[in-house]
This record gives sequence, C-alpha cells and structure tokens, in this order.
Amino acid sequence: MPEPLRILGIAGSLRRASFNRGLLRAAVEQTPAGAVIETFDLAPIPMYNEDVRTQGYPPAVAEFRAKLAAADALLIASPENNYSVPAVLKNALDWASRPPDQPLHQKPVAIMGASNGGFGTVRGQAALRVVFTAVESYVMIKPELFVSRAQDLTDADGNLTDPATRDKVKAHVEALIAWAQRMRPAG
Amino acid sequence: MPEPLRILGIAGSLRRASFNRGLLRAAVEQTPAGAVIETFDLAPIPMYNEDVRTQGYPPAVAEFRAKLAAADALLIASPENNYSVPAVLKNALDWASRPPDQPLHQKPVAIMGASNGGFGTVRGQAALRVVFTAVESYVMIKPELFVSRAQDLTDADGNLTDPATRDKVKAHVEALIAWAQRMRPAG
Amino acid sequence: MPEPLRILGIAGSLRRASFNRGLLRAAVEQTPAGAVIETFDLAPIPMYNEDVRTQGYPPAVAEFRAKLAAADALLIASPENNYSVPAVLKNALDWASRPPDQPLHQKPVAIMGASNGGFGTVRGQAALRVVFTAVESYVMIKPELFVSRAQDLTDADGNLTDPATRDKVKAHVEALIAWAQRMRPAG
Amino acid sequence: MPEPLRILGIAGSLRRASFNRGLLRAAVEQTPAGAVIETFDLAPIPMYNEDVRTQGYPPAVAEFRAKLAAADALLIASPENNYSVPAVLKNALDWASRPPDQPLHQKPVAIMGASNGGFGTVRGQAALRVVFTAVESYVMIKPELFVSRAQDLTDADGNLTDPATRDKVKAHVEALIAWAQRMRPAG
Repeated sequence: MPEPLRILGIAGSLRRASFNRGLLRAAVEQTPAGAVIETFDLAPIPMYNEDVRTQGYPPAVAEFRAKLAAADALLIASPENNYSVPAVLKNALDWASRPPDQPLHQKPVAIMGASNGGFGTVRGQAALRVVFTAVESYVMIKPELFVSRAQDLTDADGNLTDPATRDKVKAHVEALIAWAQRMRPAG
Repeated sequence: MPEPLRILGIAGSLRRASFNRGLLRAAVEQTPAGAVIETFDLAPIPMYNEDVRTQGYPPAVAEFRAKLAAADALLIASPENNYSVPAVLKNALDWASRPPDQPLHQKPVAIMGASNGGFGTVRGQAALRVVFTAVESYVMIKPELFVSRAQDLTDADGNLTDPATRDKVKAHVEALIAWAQRMRPAG
Repeated sequence: MPEPLRILGIAGSLRRASFNRGLLRAAVEQTPAGAVIETFDLAPIPMYNEDVRTQGYPPAVAEFRAKLAAADALLIASPENNYSVPAVLKNALDWASRPPDQPLHQKPVAIMGASNGGFGTVRGQAALRVVFTAVESYVMIKPELFVSRAQDLTDADGNLTDPATRDKVKAHVEALIAWAQRMRPAG
Repeated sequence: MPEPLRILGIAGSLRRASFNRGLLRAAVEQTPAGAVIETFDLAPIPMYNEDVRTQGYPPAVAEFRAKLAAADALLIASPENNYSVPAVLKNALDWASRPPDQPLHQKPVAIMGASNGGFGTVRGQAALRVVFTAVESYVMIKPELFVSRAQDLTDADGNLTDPATRDKVKAHVEALIAWAQRMRPAG
C-alpha cells in the first residue's frame, strides 16, 4: 500500500468561529482516501523579526517549518483583509521562506477562501499568488474556490453547513491531490 | 504661526539595523520647517485577531490608532518581503483599518522603501498601494522612492549615509507635506 | 454661470451591445447639472507602435489625446478580460501616456465596470489602477462600482435597465464631479 | 529520434529595433538541440472585438491560434508599458483565450523582458502572470529574467550583444524546455 499524501492545512484567521477555519475543517472531514490533512494553528507564531531569525527559529516557527517540509502539499483557507493577504498568513509564509531549507520551495499549494461579502476573497487570493511566485511554490491554478456570503453557508461556530459548498471543498482537495502527485519530485 | 504638519512615521521591519528604519531616521533628521515627524515602533503590536478586537483594542494598538488619527499624514519606510508587504506592516494597517473611526480613512500617505537587491521594493510598494485603496487613504502617487543596493548606501547600523539618497528622502518628505496640504479636509 | 465640468467617457469594449457601453450611456443620460459627458469611441485607434508614434500621432490618436487634454476628468466603463485590462483600453491609455503633454497626468479619473459573472470586474479594476499609478492620474478611490450579473440588468442592446444600478451609476458620476473639483489645479 | 520540442516565440513590442524583439532573436539564435523556436509577429492581429469573434476569427488570429495550439510551449519577450502588459501582447492573449479550443490552456509558458530603466519589466511581468492564471497556462516560476538598462546591452537594431545577458537568455530557454517536458500531458 502506498504512503498517503500528506497535506498540511492552515487558516489565515485567528478568529475562533472563522469561516475559513470552518472551510479547513470541512476539508479535513472530507479528506479522500489516499491522503491525510493535518492542520496547524498559526496563533503561536511570533511576528517575523530578522534579528530573531539569525539567532535561531523560535519553537513554534521551527515546528511549522518542519511540518511544512514533511508535507507533500499545503492547503490554505484564508480570508481577505483589506484587499490583500492577512498578516497572520503572510507572517507564517515569510518565516517559511527563509534558509536553510526554504520548505515552500516547489511545494504544491492550493488556496481557498471565504468572505462575508460578494467577492469571496478574490483580491486576497490574487495577492497571495504573488507571494508564491517569490518562493517558487507550485500553486494549483484551477479550480479556484471563492466562497461568497459565507454567513449564509455556516453555523454560529463557523462550520460549513452548505452541502453545495462542502462539495466544492471536497473537489478542491481532490484537485490538490492530483496536482501534488503531478508535481511530485521524480525521485 | 500655523500649526506644523504632523507626520507619523513607521517602518515595516523589526530588524534593529534595518535599512528602512535608517531611511525613516533620515527623513526625521531632514524634516523641513513647518512639519514634525514622530516615529512609532510597530514591535509591540500583537497579531491581528478579530476576537481580541471585539473585546477592545490592545494598548499598543490603541496608541497606534490614536497617533494615526491625530496625524495629518503617514510616512512609511518598508522592505519588500516575498514580493509583497511585510507582515508587521500589514498587521498594523489591518488593526488601523477597523471601526469605529478607521484612522486611515482619507489619510495622506507616502511610501518609500529600500532593498539589498536591484528592484528597490517596487513589488512591495505595488502590493501596499492595493491595501490603501481598500481603506481609502490618499497615497501620494509621485514621486516614488525605490532605494536599491541599500547595503552600499548605509553604515552597519542601517544609517543612510549616501548624500544623493538622503536628498531624495528629503524631497520625498517635502512632496508628502505638499500632498497632505492639498488633500487636507476643507474644514 | 460657471463653465460646466467636462468629462470624457470611454468604454473598454468594442462589442456593439456591450454592458459597459450601456453603463457609459447610463452615465451620460443621468449627467447632473454642472457637468457634461462626451463619449469617445476607441475603435479607430490603431495598435500602439513606438515607430509610428515618433513619426507623429495617427489622427484618431491625436483626436483622443486632444479631447483628453481638454477634459476635466475621465470616466471609464470597462469589462475585465482574463483578470486584467482589455487590450483596447490599455492601448488607448498607452497612446495617451506619451509626450509631449501626457494628457493623463494629474487627470481625475473614475472607473466602473460590468461583467456577466459574479465579480463585477474587480480584478480588472485592480489592474487598471496600477496603470494610473504609472501615469500619475488621480483615480477616485471610493466609491467603487462593480456591476455583477450584468445580463440580468440590461436589455438585448446592452442598455442598463435596472433602476438600482442606474442610481449607482448616477452616484458614481456625482462622486467623480466632486473628486474632480477637489483635485482641480489651483490655477 | 524524438520529435523536437516546438516553442512559439512572440514579442510584446511592434518597434522594429525593440530590445525585446532582440531578446527573442537571441533566444532563437541559441536554441538548444532538441527544440525549435518559431517566432510569430503580432503586428497583423487586429484589436479584439467580440462581435468579430462570434463571426469567425480573422485570418491572422486564426493563424496565431493554430500555431499556439501546435506548440509545446510559449516564449514571451515583452516590454512593460505603464507598469503593465503592452496592449499588443494582451490583445493576442485575449484572442487566444477564447473557445472552442482555448490554446493557452495548460500551455507551458516562459516570460522574459528588457527595459531601458532599472527595473527590467518586473511590474509588467507581474501583471502578465495574473493573465495566465485566468487562462490556466503553466507559467515557469523560476528563473525569472529581468533585463535592465537594455540600451547598454544592445546595438542600434536591438540585437542583444552583451554576452552575460545572452547566456541568461540561453539558460532561460533551457529552463523552459525542462519545464515544458515536465508539464507535458501524460498522453
């Protein structure tokens, strides 16, 4: 039996009842056979500081980097803040982008996002793709998953309850698995 | 005698010897008559968390928001991290963008940036301008100030020593003052 | 009686029944007192060619540049093509951005856009704002006008028939007039 | 003997002595064994018009689309106009993005660019990458090739004469070949 594909899942919001944490849970709950999704909470990661980095990665950062390095793919569920990437997510990616091993390098990545408004994080995802060009990650191009009016699709705890959107999340994970297998190093 | 124009200055790097902190110091040292630049260190600002916000702004955030609200203009010196806005800067702006008063609203802003490489933060500044569209700040369009190969223009503490670049910083502040006066509320 | 504010209106689509041409007509039909909107059809403008330019602007380009120079403000209604600015619009702006007089320089501009899909040209408008940073136009920041599902709001000729959207177009023109008056050269 | 990899090369400038046409010629002159580069001149392609398209692609457009469909990869050399994609290039891509076959879909693409200024088309390439997300092309992430101060590296006809830059162009083509082989449909 082959090893399952290991996906690391992170959310770009620290809000407990975040729609995007709910989106990520819906992905975990619907993980297809042949893959596992482990989530990592970005809350303990301190703000990026180059002086700190040169003295050694803080424990939470080191743990994030190790899990990312060990993963076959990265799955991100993130809100859009001010037409761009939330600081908490950008911060984690900046820590991950540094030497010696740069664990984002050639990592397959999929992005999804949910918002209250009508644009489903379309601007935030565009800004996020630029970051992944810098670090040379392999971001899945299509499908894109933009969840608008998330308050109508979730319960009070941010759980994704809308069946059609849950199906889209499941299809997104399946597409990431296929993409990660395609982009896997020849070995 | 008219009140001097009050400029709040922030740097998008926490590194002690940061080129951009040096750029900001060069601005302060060359502040023209009729204006004052007060700098604010973003280090104490915690990571944005909506659950925290709804319970009340943390003290460092409240202080930043109050200083921003009181300022006539905002001056930013920032590196580019992974082709985009550093998390520490994005985080401060996200805290500032929230109710009740949204102190970035219609605030005159100028951006400058320094990098070791040859592109002088051009991509980071582009990403930053998008954020200011979201919050409806009045970002000065021209001049733009991109400082490349900053290690050749600064000393070991990040002080900007290159006379030609110091002149550009001075001109940038003067342009911001003119822009802020033009965009000042009619009152 | 003061001179009316002169607005030049252009559409970023050559399609006869274009939603965006309809949006522009709705603006013209609802022009407030104190302003006039003249539209200019971009169809006759040839593809930008620097060798042609250095020999003299083609007649249609020269006419466009002259009308733009004479206008107090520019109003754009444009679709989004492939997440970005339509070629026909980018082409006109590239011709307009060149010497000797650069008629886009410090010109007040407002953008609006309509699409069949759900995102109302939000990515196209973001890409367009970048262009106006290059040429130092004063693009109105807010309100933004994104018209989604335009096929439900228009007739077969692209005329905007939805009353609520017509109101938004009218408000957009009024906001542009206020913005243009604010940004008008002191003279 | 295997079939050589077929690369279609296009330049985003109509200027006869364009640096970017020169860059493309340098690519052709240094094509490695196992690949062929055919260039296509975008000059005859008319401005995109949806009404025209629905009546049938104009001959030059049909030829471009056919050559693109037949190619294993696309190589673009383009200037940056007003911080964005030149109209002539955006126009060709918009024509190529339409049904029935959408020849840009999953096409491996490499981008390079030369400018007179110091930023080597970095903003233009960023804007171009967004377009390829829309059409789901596989744009090579690294290396990126930004040629600054092109007037010092070329002769009066735009021929790339600088040996170090010629080497970079050659390496860029080699990287595209490897990328195209990796992304080739399993078949």
